[in-house]
Amino acid sequence: MNGAESLVHTLLKSGVDTCFANPGTSEMHFVAALDRIPGMNCVLGLQENVVTGMADGYYRIAGKPACTLLHCGPGLANGLGNIHNARRAGVGMVNIVGDQATYHRPYDAPLTADTEGLAKTMSHWVRTSMTPDAVGRDAAEAVQQARILPGQIATLILPSDSSWDDGGEVQGALPVPAPPPVDQSAVKDAATALRQRDDVLILLYGKAALAPAHETAQGIADATGASLMIDFTNSHVARGQGRLSIERTPYPMDTAIEKLARFKTIILVGGKAPVGFFGYPGMPSIQHDPDADILRLCSRAHDTEAALRALAEELGVTPTAVPSPGPQPEAPGGPNSPGGLAQTVAALMPENSIIVDESISYGRGLYPGSFAAPPHDWLHLGGGAIGDGLPMATGAAIGAEGQRRVIGLQEDGSAMYSLQALWTQARMQLPCTTIILSNRKYNILIGEYHNVGASPGPTAMEMLDLGNPNLSWVQLANGMGVEGGVAENLDQLADLMRASLSKNGPFLIELLI
Amino acid sequence: MNGAESLVHTLLKSGVDTCFANPGTSEMHFVAALDRIPGMNCVLGLQENVVTGMADGYYRIAGKPACTLLHCGPGLANGLGNIHNARRAGVGMVNIVGDQATYHRPYDAPLTADTEGLAKTMSHWVRTSMTPDAVGRDAAEAVQQARILPGQIATLILPSDSSWDDGGEVQGALPVPAPPPVDQSAVKDAATALRQRDDVLILLYGKAALAPAHETAQGIADATGASLMIDFTNSHVARGQGRLSIERTPYPMDTAIEKLARFKTIILVGGKAPVGFFGYPGMPSIQHDPDADILRLCSRAHDTEAALRALAEELGVTPTAVPSPGPQPEAPGGPNSPGGLAQTVAALMPENSIIVDESISYGRGLYPGSFAAPPHDWLHLGGGAIGDGLPMATGAAIGAEGQRRVIGLQEDGSAMYSLQALWTQARMQLPCTTIILSNRKYNILIGEYHNVGASPGPTAMEMLDLGNPNLSWVQLANGMGVEGGVAENLDQLADLMRASLSKNGPFLIELLI
Repeated sequence: MNGAESLVHTLLKSGVDTCFANPGTSEMHFVAALDRIPGMNCVLGLQENVVTGMADGYYRIAGKPACTLLHCGPGLANGLGNIHNARRAGVGMVNIVGDQATYHRPYDAPLTADTEGLAKTMSHWVRTSMTPDAVGRDAAEAVQQARILPGQIATLILPSDSSWDDGGEVQGALPVPAPPPVDQSAVKDAATALRQRDDVLILLYGKAALAPAHETAQGIADATGASLMIDFTNSHVARGQGRLSIERTPYPMDTAIEKLARFKTIILVGGKAPVGFFGYPGMPSIQHDPDADILRLCSRAHDTEAALRALAEELGVTPTAVPSPGPQPEAPGGPNSPGGLAQTVAALMPENSIIVDESISYGRGLYPGSFAAPPHDWLHLGGGAIGDGLPMATGAAIGAEGQRRVIGLQEDGSAMYSLQALWTQARMQLPCTTIILSNRKYNILIGEYHNVGASPGPTAMEMLDLGNPNLSWVQLANGMGVEGGVAENLDQLADLMRASLSKNGPFLIELLI
Repeated sequence: MNGAESLVHTLLKSGVDTCFANPGTSEMHFVAALDRIPGMNCVLGLQENVVTGMADGYYRIAGKPACTLLHCGPGLANGLGNIHNARRAGVGMVNIVGDQATYHRPYDAPLTADTEGLAKTMSHWVRTSMTPDAVGRDAAEAVQQARILPGQIATLILPSDSSWDDGGEVQGALPVPAPPPVDQSAVKDAATALRQRDDVLILLYGKAALAPAHETAQGIADATGASLMIDFTNSHVARGQGRLSIERTPYPMDTAIEKLARFKTIILVGGKAPVGFFGYPGMPSIQHDPDADILRLCSRAHDTEAALRALAEELGVTPTAVPSPGPQPEAPGGPNSPGGLAQTVAALMPENSIIVDESISYGRGLYPGSFAAPPHDWLHLGGGAIGDGLPMATGAAIGAEGQRRVIGLQEDGSAMYSLQALWTQARMQLPCTTIILSNRKYNILIGEYHNVGASPGPTAMEMLDLGNPNLSWVQLANGMGVEGGVAENLDQLADLMRASLSKNGPFLIELLI
């Protein structure tokens, strides 16, 4: 058995059965092993940031890591943007990077690069398997590391001779370390604060933002009068009927500061105290009252849902049904508006949909405007590196085994970063509906420019405007085998959404906003 | 004056007047400074690997570095693939990476990453300007470093407060260190070998592959009987009528070994002794006779043309007219073939064209089949990280100030990596003709799979086949504002090429091979 075969067997034994791939020459023995050993679902992405973004979406929905297959240092480099997003989102991922044969590396052939150095910038765990007998053991450890809460980035570098040489040894699954136990003193401190103080904010993160934790959180809020929020950077929220109608901390600094000012105590359930995405002249870095008392109930490495349950127990509180968000809205029709877009999506999405939100500026109304939608999962770009949305939607659909509708809300500028993902949606006939919010500019940056204190002049607009020429998203989608249509208002959007939801495959709607 | 303004003034004083950009929030003060200070040509790319690839093509044709503008660590990461290619090609580039404000970085906001770590993997020089007064001096040093032969990657990281705070100081251009003097003992050793031995190969690299060196090289070959070749990894060759009809070392290992076996002495003019792109089981790493005597006339850091002239002087040889490659071919028409494609391109390209070659497998016939074309520059993917071709063509057209026709020969798989470059071609109405060699597969990898010893099965073909669905390159081009047409044979290709060459703007031809 060669190293590559031991790798495939070990991945399968460790529960990794999906491989997002863009292979190259140095991976051919691994590809050949995938051919010979049944059981791995292999999905091609036409650029590496599509590959890693698909693995991100897959983990969030499947709840277990996929592996990626990347080619040498530059192939890994191409995928690092979405590895960054995955890392920030607490996603587990096993990256397998084929590389130069050990004996060939000193010759510095053209594709030779500092693969380990690249991997270390974004990974929790990096290993190079220098011999075939190490490959199985290293792969099992990579999966183990990827499964550690909240999900970690493990990168296994595989020199091609470790892949093709005989001597591979299959390793069984390694046990995943349990998360650290809940810290009872932190639980007591949080409970004391909740009993004694007004204006307490409980900020949820990770599993505490998902459905099984919601009635616990509601019980605590009801019993103590505390407020609940989700951190803006939290990447996965359960929402809709029967779930908490829970606000997020706002993205804009001034709004966030205003919204958080009244909280003198913040209990962090897995996240960090909220800070701005960026520093701004004359603005603080933190968004909360600088004198607020910050209590850490638990870290991201904990089971945040268990920590919340422990807090409820300490308080003697039982889970409570969450308040109704009101009736599911009707599609409003009429001219485009952020609120009307939210209502349309909330009206038409099927139960158990997956919403992938990379809607940046125009989409700010989506989250608050869709509490009364059917129950759904909301995936969000927590890491801020644009270009995750289309791949994430693709991977999420695969993680749901094609059984759930994925609705992607995408600003045009960020969608162009990784539009190649549409081709994979077409190839696999995934139930993905993409709505491109086509404003033909980097609108968020035009807002940021205004913050600098002026209006953009012609040189700046050369770099902020996506018109001249206008992109035709329908032609781009058609070019990759995805059907599409243009909507100029909310009636047309609703019609196209209904048509899309009646089909099994992908569809793209360009909404001209 | 703030730091950003000192940066723009310093770049202009240092001769950098073109900025390829994909900005973000942390770069808004630099964008605002570009607005206020005239003189910088700003070009937007819709993804960072397009930005850095354009800077690559620009340098090769303009002969001086451009700057890039990238957003935080993940934005730099997205552009590293083509920075790798540029580094391998000996291209000078000044990357400006806007980043978190110095005081904001400790808060680990979402887009915070190991920007310096990422930069170091691919750069010759990295500096973070921690205060506004350092920005001008650091920028001038970055340009100085980028200009050092053969061209270097300089990355300047600019925390946003260094950009917006007052205290910027403009720095004049710093002198570019002269290349090291030609080593006379190496010249004498090479001359001695040339006088005494048969079967000597002179392997040209860098400036020695460009037109002014060709008659010198021909003179040496005529006088000594030595053979001349260009290293396959060399990224820029002057070709066509009046230039050397000079072979490249072959890409496939077996062909390369066979071709180089007879040379018992190899004189390296700036390059390295030829090695395989990859290691293969049972194959050596080096392509030449392992007993061959390797003589290094000079390194890449030298002026390789000057070293060649010194060798000619030592030998007492004068420049000699190069042999005619024969008459320019006619467009052959008929069914597709690699040779016929080469003849068609050679027949129709205007004088002084720039050919950008990322044609991978089907394009292997292009180089040998186009010696008799009009004089032209040939740019080639020396670094091996696919996805450089479309951006390089775009940047080369800008480097030529729109005055030269750029003909890009692109395999479909690699073109999909950075197709967004077509939009910049449309926006700037660049004279770029792109020929997509559409075989709808990663054909080079299917060949590599066969080398593993078997035919790809269904799982492997899932990862190597680009059909299902077929890409429509004309729709993709149209979607970005570029006209296009499909050619099924060489007659149709010639018709579309003629139509394209009569227009000023970009055009894409999908050749179904």
